[in-house]
Amino acid sequence: MKKKLTIGLFGFGVVGQGLYNVLSQTHGVKAEIKRIAIKDKSKTRTLPQELFTTDKTEILNDPSIDIVVELINDHEAAYAIVKEAIEKGKHVVTANKRMLAENLEEFYELQQRYGKSILYEGSVCGSIPIIRNLEEYYDNDLLTSIEGIFNGSTNYILTKVFEEKKSYADALLKAQELGFAETDPALDVEGYDAKFKLVIAIAHTFGVFVKPADVINIGIDKISATDLKYAKENNLSIKLVARAFKQGDKVFAFVAPQFIEAHHPLASIRNEYNAVLVEGAFAEKQTFVGKGAGSYPTGSAVLSDVSALTYGYAYEYKKRAQHEALSFSNDLRVEAVVTFEDQHSVSIKDFETFKSGYAANGKQLLQGILTLAQFKALSERDGVSVLLAANATFSPIAESVPEDLLAS
Amino acid sequence: MKKKLTIGLFGFGVVGQGLYNVLSQTHGVKAEIKRIAIKDKSKTRTLPQELFTTDKTEILNDPSIDIVVELINDHEAAYAIVKEAIEKGKHVVTANKRMLAENLEEFYELQQRYGKSILYEGSVCGSIPIIRNLEEYYDNDLLTSIEGIFNGSTNYILTKVFEEKKSYADALLKAQELGFAETDPALDVEGYDAKFKLVIAIAHTFGVFVKPADVINIGIDKISATDLKYAKENNLSIKLVARAFKQGDKVFAFVAPQFIEAHHPLASIRNEYNAVLVEGAFAEKQTFVGKGAGSYPTGSAVLSDVSALTYGYAYEYKKRAQHEALSFSNDLRVEAVVTFEDQHSVSIKDFETFKSGYAANGKQLLQGILTLAQFKALSERDGVSVLLAANATFSPIAESVPEDLLAS
Repeated sequence: MKKKLTIGLFGFGVVGQGLYNVLSQTHGVKAEIKRIAIKDKSKTRTLPQELFTTDKTEILNDPSIDIVVELINDHEAAYAIVKEAIEKGKHVVTANKRMLAENLEEFYELQQRYGKSILYEGSVCGSIPIIRNLEEYYDNDLLTSIEGIFNGSTNYILTKVFEEKKSYADALLKAQELGFAETDPALDVEGYDAKFKLVIAIAHTFGVFVKPADVINIGIDKISATDLKYAKENNLSIKLVARAFKQGDKVFAFVAPQFIEAHHPLASIRNEYNAVLVEGAFAEKQTFVGKGAGSYPTGSAVLSDVSALTYGYAYEYKKRAQHEALSFSNDLRVEAVVTFEDQHSVSIKDFETFKSGYAANGKQLLQGILTLAQFKALSERDGVSVLLAANATFSPIAESVPEDLLAS
Repeated sequence: MKKKLTIGLFGFGVVGQGLYNVLSQTHGVKAEIKRIAIKDKSKTRTLPQELFTTDKTEILNDPSIDIVVELINDHEAAYAIVKEAIEKGKHVVTANKRMLAENLEEFYELQQRYGKSILYEGSVCGSIPIIRNLEEYYDNDLLTSIEGIFNGSTNYILTKVFEEKKSYADALLKAQELGFAETDPALDVEGYDAKFKLVIAIAHTFGVFVKPADVINIGIDKISATDLKYAKENNLSIKLVARAFKQGDKVFAFVAPQFIEAHHPLASIRNEYNAVLVEGAFAEKQTFVGKGAGSYPTGSAVLSDVSALTYGYAYEYKKRAQHEALSFSNDLRVEAVVTFEDQHSVSIKDFETFKSGYAANGKQLLQGILTLAQFKALSERDGVSVLLAANATFSPIAESVPEDLLAS
């Protein structure tokens, strides 16, 4: 039986306002916003002043509030709010991917201990119902991989750069104007935002908690004119791809730009759209596409979480029970394309296996197999751009013999 | 709390065997198949004979069986099984779209009366979790349209005809060999199969029960060489599109082949893949892509329903409560492309509004606005092929004044 729920909302930015509008227009969600905690009470609001407060205890200490919806930017303040809300017996809905990614294991334990839910569908790919489907629909499938375009802002930039030949800076500015971009653009363009989402998705795909700091992210900020030229000549596009997959008892995961063939399902994902490709033993290949950013798409996901709380929904982290032996690893070889202008930047020796290369007008391109660590290291050299090759294959590095065995 | 469930299975064809394999390989579904009812006991089976029976009462009258999984071909026999199972207090899982589409309103009422579930995720677009998402994730969104490629067999044929220049007959044969096609190919190629799925989807998108006989379906069996030539010259593909949408208090729905522009999300859906595009006020545009046919994809959906029954899941037909005033209508104008060889087959007068036309080498093409009734009537003329135009617009025909009002 659905019961009427009372919401305390933290933050009244674009998503919070979206939620408020959606809640007031839709039928059937038995929930109302009682109080909205904000930072700056002097801002002009379209709603009655008495709804707002700058004192978080007016929500956290109010026993009539069942759900805290946390939609603020500051991930550290958000962490404190979520933790205190759960400890005070409230459910939480949040879309704060950084905070979730950094604290997911603790939040898992807090949910078990206090018997309250933390739901966060809006944190991963906006309106795409990926977490719920991983939990419920694929609860018994043996999933082997999840990958996709997890950041709308960079995909918007790449679309504009490719299709409208806009400059990178112009495209970024436009993405910010349209409200797709994070306040700190580095979170988007350096691949952190996609990584936070990937870390959350991994918990529900493979049942493994991974620290964001352990996952390699390479962004789109160093993509070169040579990369664009190579893409056009080979009928490829470039996408920032987040991926995680299982091989044996290991889970591998990373975020990196990649050349994408025209027929690939990600090739047609344009502008601020996100896409998630899930592969499992039984459902085989599934694709989900939807808007990854913006006030309504994220507000819709948050609303769906609120609605789920009216019938007592909680994530069970079902894959965790199934795959206890899986562990995260970066011991992987990848196939990469490396471009640079200064001929001394990169040499064939930087590759484990060199495949091909060319140089023209001072611009160089090398392709070959690298370890993930080498790939990351090259990405950090000045004037060097690295991308995964189109249809890159990935092969785990066989485990070396443990040192204690060698010593014996 | 999940409880262990006992399954009686009807049918052991490709999907039934898929389910059996999936159930025996996967972890965590607390359900086992106790009995399998089959038609022909003399066939060689890979499982112990004592599992099989040809007497349906051995399942229906067995009080230890909680769930009947119905996976037989014969829709009339399936109807009798589903009805009796519910009346005897069992839950039902089925993927029989024709039977469901024709009896959905009665099944809705039976579920209410007996307090048992009929789940049928596998009936619509195989492995794509569309029913569950319409029910749960979009439970509070104001959905405005659902459309897509709902039949894998015709999409496979169209892909082969377009990309590999196979003949229509060869492509159909290959689809049948691969197990995508219905036993009666007319169900696929004339658009019936897609229509049954559409009727089921409409119940969960708009809360309206529509009779399949009231929904117009036009297939791909009359697509002409002129259509293919026109498509290639204009960089279009052809897809069999099922669609339903809401305008005002009316729901419109039909299945028809359509020219699709290269950038359209359906353009990249190839072979036996299905796609569903959902549009709502808040979630905006969402796309789901997955395999629509085959033993594992459908088996996976059936398994997911079995799994949902272990925690007491039932469809609530949530949109029904929200939209009681909606009604189904065919009073619509559509933009169509009509091709034919005999110059007397079609004339400009057959259109409400004629837009353009050309004739060459005895082949003719006319484009313009038709009512849905005219569109259907033209599709039935000998030697005439009709398709919806690329990006066709649809406009409701304003309601005429009711006759009783005219009389008063």
